[in-house]
Amino acid sequence: MERTYISQTVDKIGQLVRLKGYINTVRDHGKITFIDLRDKTGVLQCVGTDLKIQLRGEDVVEIEGAVKSRPEKMVNEKLPTGKVELAIVKLTVIEKADELPFDLGGNDLNVSLPVLLDYRSLTLRHPKSQAIFKVQNQVVKTFRDYLSSQGFVEFNAPTIVPVATEGGANVFPIKYFEHDCYLAQSPQLYKQIMVGVFERVFSVARAYRAEPSVTTRHICEYVSLDAEMGFIDSWTEVMDVLENLFKKVFADIDLNCKDELALFDQTVPRVENLIPRIKMREAQQIIFERTGVDHRAEKDLEPEDEREICRWAAETKGSELVFVTHYPTAKRAFYTMPDPADPEFSLSFDLLGRGLEWVSGSQRINNHKELVKAVELRGNNVKDFELYLQAFKYGMPPEGGFALGAERITMQILGLENIREATLFPRDMERVDIKLSSLKTQKNAKKIPLKKTP
Amino acid sequence: MERTYISQTVDKIGQLVRLKGYINTVRDHGKITFIDLRDKTGVLQCVGTDLKIQLRGEDVVEIEGAVKSRPEKMVNEKLPTGKVELAIVKLTVIEKADELPFDLGGNDLNVSLPVLLDYRSLTLRHPKSQAIFKVQNQVVKTFRDYLSSQGFVEFNAPTIVPVATEGGANVFPIKYFEHDCYLAQSPQLYKQIMVGVFERVFSVARAYRAEPSVTTRHICEYVSLDAEMGFIDSWTEVMDVLENLFKKVFADIDLNCKDELALFDQTVPRVENLIPRIKMREAQQIIFERTGVDHRAEKDLEPEDEREICRWAAETKGSELVFVTHYPTAKRAFYTMPDPADPEFSLSFDLLGRGLEWVSGSQRINNHKELVKAVELRGNNVKDFELYLQAFKYGMPPEGGFALGAERITMQILGLENIREATLFPRDMERVDIKLSSLKTQKNAKKIPLKKTP
Repeated sequence: MERTYISQTVDKIGQLVRLKGYINTVRDHGKITFIDLRDKTGVLQCVGTDLKIQLRGEDVVEIEGAVKSRPEKMVNEKLPTGKVELAIVKLTVIEKADELPFDLGGNDLNVSLPVLLDYRSLTLRHPKSQAIFKVQNQVVKTFRDYLSSQGFVEFNAPTIVPVATEGGANVFPIKYFEHDCYLAQSPQLYKQIMVGVFERVFSVARAYRAEPSVTTRHICEYVSLDAEMGFIDSWTEVMDVLENLFKKVFADIDLNCKDELALFDQTVPRVENLIPRIKMREAQQIIFERTGVDHRAEKDLEPEDEREICRWAAETKGSELVFVTHYPTAKRAFYTMPDPADPEFSLSFDLLGRGLEWVSGSQRINNHKELVKAVELRGNNVKDFELYLQAFKYGMPPEGGFALGAERITMQILGLENIREATLFPRDMERVDIKLSSLKTQKNAKKIPLKKTP
Repeated sequence: MERTYISQTVDKIGQLVRLKGYINTVRDHGKITFIDLRDKTGVLQCVGTDLKIQLRGEDVVEIEGAVKSRPEKMVNEKLPTGKVELAIVKLTVIEKADELPFDLGGNDLNVSLPVLLDYRSLTLRHPKSQAIFKVQNQVVKTFRDYLSSQGFVEFNAPTIVPVATEGGANVFPIKYFEHDCYLAQSPQLYKQIMVGVFERVFSVARAYRAEPSVTTRHICEYVSLDAEMGFIDSWTEVMDVLENLFKKVFADIDLNCKDELALFDQTVPRVENLIPRIKMREAQQIIFERTGVDHRAEKDLEPEDEREICRWAAETKGSELVFVTHYPTAKRAFYTMPDPADPEFSLSFDLLGRGLEWVSGSQRINNHKELVKAVELRGNNVKDFELYLQAFKYGMPPEGGFALGAERITMQILGLENIREATLFPRDMERVDIKLSSLKTQKNAKKIPLKKTP
């Protein structure tokens, strides 16, 4: 008999089916046993009589039985399968599970963050964990689909880089044969090179930051969603693409992740019309007028400024997102285009949402000579940027782009407290799957002889 | 005036349009100048009179002009835009390019491999280079779309790993704060963990191998396409999915990449019916009978064996692909399921195509105790596999999967001589964008103070 998925049982009342899955919960009432069986499509109540078998949560089982309508007063409206149940004919244990260290069968997974991560292979199985990554997959899918529909071409950015091109701090060195290389802090330079190839490009790539502190919103390895577009007539076109992208992300999540949003009691961010666009100096003025806090001479927004300007946008513009533009040129990366009208400030923007930075972007310097000057001005070695500068030496159109982290966007949409909840296997300065303090330093690593792969 | 893409000009005869792109070639005949303009959609002949402007290849320009039918005898049937041309009204140079180090305007890019890579930012712009990555994108897209249609869920595999779990050789160590970590050789252990979460999963991830030699078919950083499926009734289901995947890949490339295949004078691999499935021992017997070469006692297929068995499959079975199964258990990774009927051999397979290994896969050991034994049998430390083993401790269904490299598949489909041609920015023991021998060793890397990111 072919396997039936749990979500299909509602259409098979009266039929004999074969199910496979995990024991989610089991309640033994002597003669009668109630089992909640879980597979990737949902949970179903199964009822057995005289099972004569000891079961526990996470046992992998196969169950044959008859799908039945539940008596009216037993219907569970909250469950998609709440109108049916399975009368067990035969139950086979495929693999036994060890005794669980905590209850995995409840609606919530009530464990501390260390336990959540210590038992990551187990806690990811909880429906609320699964829901987080369904939302994250939708974010990435919409990013990919929407940009593709706008003529962007995906490319695979490399992650081993020869020099720490975006500043030596916060970078992980790699022992690369007899040389030192680094893990890429972003695909920035490569996406700009690729503008010369495909004009409009995007990538879904791993990016790495050696964050020397543990915060609720940083991880050391994350999924960077990067886009870059050439032949722009104005830098505001970059913000237009980003604005439309997020409207599509919210619409898709609203459409496809209703159950997941409901689990976290969230709605997608509200954007009634256009996302407001204000200069950093204007933002500081607004904050001063609203709160009396005078940051009008500061070179960047403080975290509390970001929260306040988001409140302003939500209250006065009907938007939980807001663009802040024209950050000081000196505060942005070397490739950022200064504003020709006032070169102290740049054609740059952050997109803030619900009090936090979501996206960073800008127009880039595309003239080769100007770019070389900008590299040198920050004390960089032009030789280190050889392949990058080559793309500009041989002609590059006006271009700009933006980058966002998939985990942070997921965290913000679902209102999670810690970005680690939105990361399958979070890496930080204390943990890479296991606590680093429990690891012996692997002093022998480079002594192991290399062998050829066929 | 809105920008018109070159491919759209064929529908705009008689209209005034604004084009943007690169000078692909320029031929100056005194009063009349012929320009081949290139954008992401194609190449168009533009004709100017008295241009009074010095142009060279890769100059970024904007051209306004009138689209005209070409005189009948000037039609170029080989070019999608060969029936039209543009009469230039106004030409503006947006960015000048430096003089090119080689001709980029020809049908072929006649440069040596070192030049191809030394000028990677430039050589990627050649239409034949672009074609390679359009095919590669189709391979990845079909992998993603087909597996999604079969109920597989995508996940983002981490690439920083705490221990060299698949053998200490060929692994890149990372300086991770005060600890040594490693670059993942594959997402293998994580995709198995994720079977416990989503049952069927796939990932498009970077994988890293410290290949200590320079070959035509290995690179140190590549795009690994991984799939893993749980609740299988038989390990042959894994091969079924893979077989259908490749049939879809070939069909999609045949449909969507006709021009790209033609550029390389290639057709997609032929698979008339089923892909043949033979045991390794049977393959060795067939090779012995066909060639007299007796490898029947060898523990693995030699490269020449792989070529010969592919010839056999193509000649006698009408298939340029062939599954070879049941490799010796001792020759495969620790997690490979031994064949219960003959545990010296395993429920493993390679998919060979056109003389080379394309894919590797197997059923995995899913019983926790058996897996612990297998870890120990290979001299590994069980503690190093804690998170991985946790997934099996708490119940894992019978499962299996496979992995392939996007670059190698692209290379094989297009008949490229070197995998570097199918890699945007290839990394090997000699090169990471630039020749490593030209790099000073960055001895100061770990002394740079870390700073917090906002």
